[in-house]
Amino acid sequence: MTNPESHPSGEDDLIARYFKPLATDPGALGLVDDAAILKAHGEDIVVTTDAVVAGVHFLHDDPPDTVARKALRVNLSDLAAKGATPAGFVLTLALPRADEGWLSAFAHGLGEDAVQYGCPLLGGDTVSTPGPLMISITAFGRVPAGRMVRRGGAKAGDCVMVTGTIGDAMIGLDLLKGGAVATALAADAAAREFLIGRYRVPQPRNALAGGLRDHASAAMDVSDGLAGDLAKLCAASGVSAVIDASRLPTSAVATALLERQVTDIAALVSGGDDYEVLCIVPDTRCESLAETARGAGVALTPIGIIVAGSGAPRFLDAQGRAITLARLSYSHF
Amino acid sequence: MTNPESHPSGEDDLIARYFKPLATDPGALGLVDDAAILKAHGEDIVVTTDAVVAGVHFLHDDPPDTVARKALRVNLSDLAAKGATPAGFVLTLALPRADEGWLSAFAHGLGEDAVQYGCPLLGGDTVSTPGPLMISITAFGRVPAGRMVRRGGAKAGDCVMVTGTIGDAMIGLDLLKGGAVATALAADAAAREFLIGRYRVPQPRNALAGGLRDHASAAMDVSDGLAGDLAKLCAASGVSAVIDASRLPTSAVATALLERQVTDIAALVSGGDDYEVLCIVPDTRCESLAETARGAGVALTPIGIIVAGSGAPRFLDAQGRAITLARLSYSHF
Repeated sequence: MTNPESHPSGEDDLIARYFKPLATDPGALGLVDDAAILKAHGEDIVVTTDAVVAGVHFLHDDPPDTVARKALRVNLSDLAAKGATPAGFVLTLALPRADEGWLSAFAHGLGEDAVQYGCPLLGGDTVSTPGPLMISITAFGRVPAGRMVRRGGAKAGDCVMVTGTIGDAMIGLDLLKGGAVATALAADAAAREFLIGRYRVPQPRNALAGGLRDHASAAMDVSDGLAGDLAKLCAASGVSAVIDASRLPTSAVATALLERQVTDIAALVSGGDDYEVLCIVPDTRCESLAETARGAGVALTPIGIIVAGSGAPRFLDAQGRAITLARLSYSHF
Repeated sequence: MTNPESHPSGEDDLIARYFKPLATDPGALGLVDDAAILKAHGEDIVVTTDAVVAGVHFLHDDPPDTVARKALRVNLSDLAAKGATPAGFVLTLALPRADEGWLSAFAHGLGEDAVQYGCPLLGGDTVSTPGPLMISITAFGRVPAGRMVRRGGAKAGDCVMVTGTIGDAMIGLDLLKGGAVATALAADAAAREFLIGRYRVPQPRNALAGGLRDHASAAMDVSDGLAGDLAKLCAASGVSAVIDASRLPTSAVATALLERQVTDIAALVSGGDDYEVLCIVPDTRCESLAETARGAGVALTPIGIIVAGSGAPRFLDAQGRAITLARLSYSHF
């Protein structure tokens, strides 16, 4: 590129020092070529891309290793929901400055996750920016040809299920921002740590990918709020849904905060950053998928049913009354 | 993601309005799913990623359609040099604001190039940023299995060749910044337009990809300056090179500026943004590749020879004297 700088080899040095150890796949060519090679043997390559920006998707003072994990895991979460097995990723890192301490911790967290999820670094680009730190990752997965789980396959009568628990990350962010939750949990360090962890480090459900491929009629990951994401899935499938809010899986901490009315269901289902899998499963397949989930150690909860229609999904309380949602989910613009 | 905003569907609307028309490949699923599908039938997928940042890789007031073209073409240039046929790309767009006029022109330029180069949009992510506009593109190409042209195949005795002309983009940037060239070309609007065009809109040499695959022993695109990029290629191949600077292909405008001593060879070979292909070709294959290049309408010039050794490539003037290069190329850090 352009503009002279004093260290002609600084960029290559950074890459060699911090990122080459993560490039364990032969297709990465040790990060010394212009491109990587992704082998395919007739299966489909699933491609997903998600970027995170400091101050928007994570906080400026979040630890660098959790920033790295989040940047990769939001992509792994997409692969999981699509039924794909991780194959690798490329990284664009836009850095305000080359802070070696930060980079070292970032690369360490990224490398641990790359190993844990079997998703090696294949290549990337490191650029300087006068703006906030930004990380864009494009991740690749493999599925047998034609078997990617889409948003558009849900049918009336199918069961709506969700992994893990909903709303913790949203509460964790509120906590980090010093909101009402911070006061409510002032004396409970363990609860604060749990919620902040849920915001900073998503737990992508890649262990369930095979089960989703075998049993789900549609799926997506919940990143922008369950209500809005379910609405998108329903729109893509040409259906609607009815959700029994009393069945929504919430963590012990979130359940206690709901009981104390520090938060409410409407907030939990319209907050973001859950990175759980929302999946739609034909009635005859629910037990099979539930069994797979148990075997994989992933909590999976039925929360409602797909119905005919084109309206927004309805969330009903324990008395069957519709819950009003002020907004469905987060949007950047 | 997090933080409530007033237009819950703004992001999806932007994507549907401006980018869905570019998603012509069935694997893009109309941009309404979480991931794209890249079909592969035993060939290798070549993956490259390059980001551009406003104020770093392009100027803040560059026209939006040229910004789009540059963002895509720097990636197409990598595919060309690797001998790969474009298959598609994913786009991360970090926007300071949703300016519809800008977006419309950006998408128009991007769409025209996607059609021209046979490289459709497969997916992406649009995020807001308080920082400068940034575009990160990951592009995919296909090569027969094991046939990607690498940096590491050059052998002593091979011919060093380069496409197009070298240095125009660097001069164009100098011009846009009001440097010495601006004064020298004050009366020559056509020359100014040519040079600025060379900076803003690279001409990737995808027409030569097949020829490179068939004949080159090594190749890379010239993005950070010919001298530095040749040094990287030589290092990857474990060789050195001797370049006859008097044979370097320069445009008529650049040649005139060299004669007037407004610029010099050292500046041309260490400036960036050429996006030409540097290729290394065994002696027995030079004529075949030259013929392919003529058929493809791509200028291809022999400029030197690969030699044994591990030192930086030497650039010799017409009298055989070594030209001193203050720096080899641009680095971000």
